Amino acid sequence: MKKIGAIIALSAAAFAFSQRPLEKVEPAFWWKGMKNPELQILVYGKDIAKNKIELSDHVQIKDIQKVENPNYVFITVNTAEINVPDFKITIKNGNKNIESYTYELKQRNPNSAARSSFTSKDVVYLIMPDRFANGNEKNDSTPDLTEKADRSLPNGRHGGDLRGIINNLDYIQSLGATAVWLTPVNEDNEKIYSYHGYAQTDLYKIDGRYGTNEEYKELSQKLNQRNMKLVMDYVTNHWGASHWMIRDLPSKDWIHWFNEGEKGFRRSNYKTTTQFDTNAAEIDKKLALDGWFDTTMPDINQKNPLVLKYLTQNAIWWIEYAELGGFRVDTYPYNDKEAMAKWAKEITDEYPDFNIVGETWLYTAGQISAWQKDSKTGEAANYNSYLPSVMDFMLYADLPKALKEKEGWDSGLVKIYNVFTSDFLYPDINKVMVFLENHDTERWNEIFNADPKDYKLGLTLISTVRGIPQIYYGSEIGMRGDKNKGGDADIRRDFPGGWKSDRQNAFNLSSQTPEQKEFYQFTQKLLNWRKRTEVIHTGKTKNFIPQNNVFVYFRYNEKESVMVVLNNSEKQETLDLKRFSESLNGFSKGKDIILDKEFSIQNTLTVPAKTSMVLELK
Amino acid sequence: MKKIGAIIALSAAAFAFSQRPLEKVEPAFWWKGMKNPELQILVYGKDIAKNKIELSDHVQIKDIQKVENPNYVFITVNTAEINVPDFKITIKNGNKNIESYTYELKQRNPNSAARSSFTSKDVVYLIMPDRFANGNEKNDSTPDLTEKADRSLPNGRHGGDLRGIINNLDYIQSLGATAVWLTPVNEDNEKIYSYHGYAQTDLYKIDGRYGTNEEYKELSQKLNQRNMKLVMDYVTNHWGASHWMIRDLPSKDWIHWFNEGEKGFRRSNYKTTTQFDTNAAEIDKKLALDGWFDTTMPDINQKNPLVLKYLTQNAIWWIEYAELGGFRVDTYPYNDKEAMAKWAKEITDEYPDFNIVGETWLYTAGQISAWQKDSKTGEAANYNSYLPSVMDFMLYADLPKALKEKEGWDSGLVKIYNVFTSDFLYPDINKVMVFLENHDTERWNEIFNADPKDYKLGLTLISTVRGIPQIYYGSEIGMRGDKNKGGDADIRRDFPGGWKSDRQNAFNLSSQTPEQKEFYQFTQKLLNWRKRTEVIHTGKTKNFIPQNNVFVYFRYNEKESVMVVLNNSEKQETLDLKRFSESLNGFSKGKDIILDKEFSIQNTLTVPAKTSMVLELK
Repeated sequence: MKKIGAIIALSAAAFAFSQRPLEKVEPAFWWKGMKNPELQILVYGKDIAKNKIELSDHVQIKDIQKVENPNYVFITVNTAEINVPDFKITIKNGNKNIESYTYELKQRNPNSAARSSFTSKDVVYLIMPDRFANGNEKNDSTPDLTEKADRSLPNGRHGGDLRGIINNLDYIQSLGATAVWLTPVNEDNEKIYSYHGYAQTDLYKIDGRYGTNEEYKELSQKLNQRNMKLVMDYVTNHWGASHWMIRDLPSKDWIHWFNEGEKGFRRSNYKTTTQFDTNAAEIDKKLALDGWFDTTMPDINQKNPLVLKYLTQNAIWWIEYAELGGFRVDTYPYNDKEAMAKWAKEITDEYPDFNIVGETWLYTAGQISAWQKDSKTGEAANYNSYLPSVMDFMLYADLPKALKEKEGWDSGLVKIYNVFTSDFLYPDINKVMVFLENHDTERWNEIFNADPKDYKLGLTLISTVRGIPQIYYGSEIGMRGDKNKGGDADIRRDFPGGWKSDRQNAFNLSSQTPEQKEFYQFTQKLLNWRKRTEVIHTGKTKNFIPQNNVFVYFRYNEKESVMVVLNNSEKQETLDLKRFSESLNGFSKGKDIILDKEFSIQNTLTVPAKTSMVLELK
Repeated sequence: MKKIGAIIALSAAAFAFSQRPLEKVEPAFWWKGMKNPELQILVYGKDIAKNKIELSDHVQIKDIQKVENPNYVFITVNTAEINVPDFKITIKNGNKNIESYTYELKQRNPNSAARSSFTSKDVVYLIMPDRFANGNEKNDSTPDLTEKADRSLPNGRHGGDLRGIINNLDYIQSLGATAVWLTPVNEDNEKIYSYHGYAQTDLYKIDGRYGTNEEYKELSQKLNQRNMKLVMDYVTNHWGASHWMIRDLPSKDWIHWFNEGEKGFRRSNYKTTTQFDTNAAEIDKKLALDGWFDTTMPDINQKNPLVLKYLTQNAIWWIEYAELGGFRVDTYPYNDKEAMAKWAKEITDEYPDFNIVGETWLYTAGQISAWQKDSKTGEAANYNSYLPSVMDFMLYADLPKALKEKEGWDSGLVKIYNVFTSDFLYPDINKVMVFLENHDTERWNEIFNADPKDYKLGLTLISTVRGIPQIYYGSEIGMRGDKNKGGDADIRRDFPGGWKSDRQNAFNLSSQTPEQKEFYQFTQKLLNWRKRTEVIHTGKTKNFIPQNNVFVYFRYNEKESVMVVLNNSEKQETLDLKRFSESLNGFSKGKDIILDKEFSIQNTLTVPAKTSMVLELK
């Protein structure tokens, strides 16, 4: 994220925002029948801790916690012992009822606990909602939120919203994606540069400029009806400086402070390798973990049990409320790792098949795998993350280099082969997210000058290797974006056709330019084939060391075999198929799933320059 | 190793070398009181398997194994049950004694089993014996060995020998080295290019051009008297094509064959990452492990239990006979890994403190650490190597790059810092060998154009970080060598002064050139300081993320603290010492161990351009 805005002044003494005696109750409601029956309810109001709190219907307060700031009280109840659908929380001053709140315990959806989540069967489509489609112009600006829409500002709010996504689900589904990851859509009420959503100001409320909580749930339900999933971008590491709890901190240790002279802020050194480094200096480790990701993002202290409980319940609330199909968690290795292990464990204890992928932006398999649940590499550091999925930033970093290189001992496609030789370090290699790019990186089509040949090679790879492919909105029509020149805004350009005033509508296939069509049709064909091809989802892999800049691998199970050939050479290559006999044995033909054409695989196979072939073996 | 010589013709039918009925007994003798009392004796002679074999003194044959080739018999006895100092092995044809051999069971040296071995307390000096010093001109060529000395040939025999090393032990010791690793000195009777010794033709006999078994033992004993150790370069992966057992194979499966049309030989693909790669193609794996390292080096099949037993007993024989202080094992990941685990386990079961370092030429900590005993990374591949030590080829590869780079997110000294952030993957990080170069790599002083500044930075690093430093003969006087231009011969030049006819004698400090002196004196000072500085051997490490291309780290224990500063910047840098307060707390001065000068460490520290400082804190 780019640094924008001045250092904000935070003061632990600024406990002066709450006016009413009961301003907020969080979570606003809960459910009966959760595996963990314990529920911690935050009640917030002016000097609320000085008042008495009573629950109706014989509901017992199991624990009550007060903190430095008298505007907060944390009440714990046991939902298993509550036999009413709702009860009253009453704030009393002496015998006088000041204010009260009806707390509802809803019924859970059937099979909620056993919900399915995104897996290697899925392709995840990553969207920045502000930049995708503006389905409701009425909410582009809202009275209660500071930053107003201005599409002329690269870093401004452009008006994209949930309705825009809902309106284009046909497009997304027909592309072949089966899950949608939206960058954060909770309220981000920072004054400027709020569209990215990573400086959240209310963790229980969808930003009004994206829509409502109900619309978010509607999106999820409509995806589920299509057998697709909604993946929430969850942020545990930091909140926005304008978050109501940051402006009226429950306790000083809710966030990480540096010395007062610097007003709380010090920037992270971003060296998260310190997490497992037994020799890291304390000061470096502290700065990596407790330093702020950016000036507007106070670093949350997950070591505080109340913070952790808040983050855990909020995460579970969203899963249950919005019927979610997964989390992507921002800046994962910047968090306190012990606290995050508890967070991930508590969520997956509640929803055993729920997938959570952490943004493990590290460059070696040894480091990345250490973040995956039950990894031996984690164990080497006496750690179990309980995090089901990690991101393969090693593959991400090496893939563009590899495609631009000639083959050598460890250059060209051998570089990619080398990535896979460390797969043994991952306890569950199919729970690794694979991607060419995301909303924080240079766009793939910028790196390759919008050459469809490189796009096809890259997409073929991430769509046919182990793991969960993630694609980034717009690349399927060849969109470019240069982070080095235009900053984040340039890699987050508006999708053409998302706004009524757009001259072109690329959502409409018949309006696509020939260039867009080439990208789109290839993507659609490949991903839809992937969707129905089980051997890619869960099959084994057999890799052959690249030769002449041609990488050949097979995905296979007892029923199916697929041969993938990536020719990154600038010339046509003819393969002597004898070398692959251990995988070709019993097959005589291969049907290219893009060309719909059969090739003999008896003796040799000729592959055009810079071309991939995906052959179903017969 | 360079490819020299044509493909040799091997034939499994060529069983026609043995003439006498009992030509060889191996091991020639053994010891009483080994932990493993079982001993397998190979007896070799013309058609010996067709004769009867008897042992005297009621010694029982526990097992007798015959193989395809009738010239071999393998007899197993239990030495714990033998109560005589020797017994006779008699070859009988019917009742007629044809030939006999007196088999001796010697007494072991006291504390042989508990021998100490090279550790992080040591600095290992690597010598190519043919290129170091010619102490005995009489054995430069011998009648029984094919290749004769010719110093004019870059790849020829130059005449260096064990006597030359023995004569220069004062030089090696005063330099500060405490262990000596010689590249192989067993007989290598290949016709040409035999000086490197990796194509061994007799595993029980020192090459006559280096000396005798007795001289090898003398070298080891003289080192031990100086509290130094001899490290043998052991080769399990391949033998020389002229090895007597290769010329008269016990069985076809003694070595790895490829199809007959290629006469047994196929070159390895050198991709040893296939060892832990669950997805590697069988053909790639087979070529990596069973392919030959070079044409003159048939690849040994350690899966054959007789081969493994032979290698194990031979290794133990040398430890016991020559009073060795360690092994370096060639091309470790090219061997069958299960067999090698048994080999390493059996040796370390016999000698629990014996160190064995494998040539783990891989570039990631995940891969390298997987080869170390009890590693979690190995466990991830269901493997335990039982190999105590591995080589840090990741550090080796990154160090020259780092010193040539400006500092960036992951360039410059940060690249080296990054290497250490994966130390958690190693179960015993102090048993990792660290080095700038070896006999198979470009010489460090060639890479850096013999600039003493870079040499000092590099040497300071490997001498003060965790692990076991290994240095390479000649670099301490600035020797260069360009493998890219001159091949292996150029990085294995003769040490000046090792030959009587040499114009200059760099062993004699007073004869060193001023340039040589600068390299030598720095090395001597640093290594001798290291020798007496326990905190470097076993202390903890604290690394600070490099800034401005300056890397600062501390080695510390309860008694001592050392601050190491590496300034790789082209200009003088002044450090604000406040950043290091967690490690400087309680100290006010640091004594530079090279300059013998004290510096205040109260506020700032100024370090000249491209300079290292090693400060003992006080």
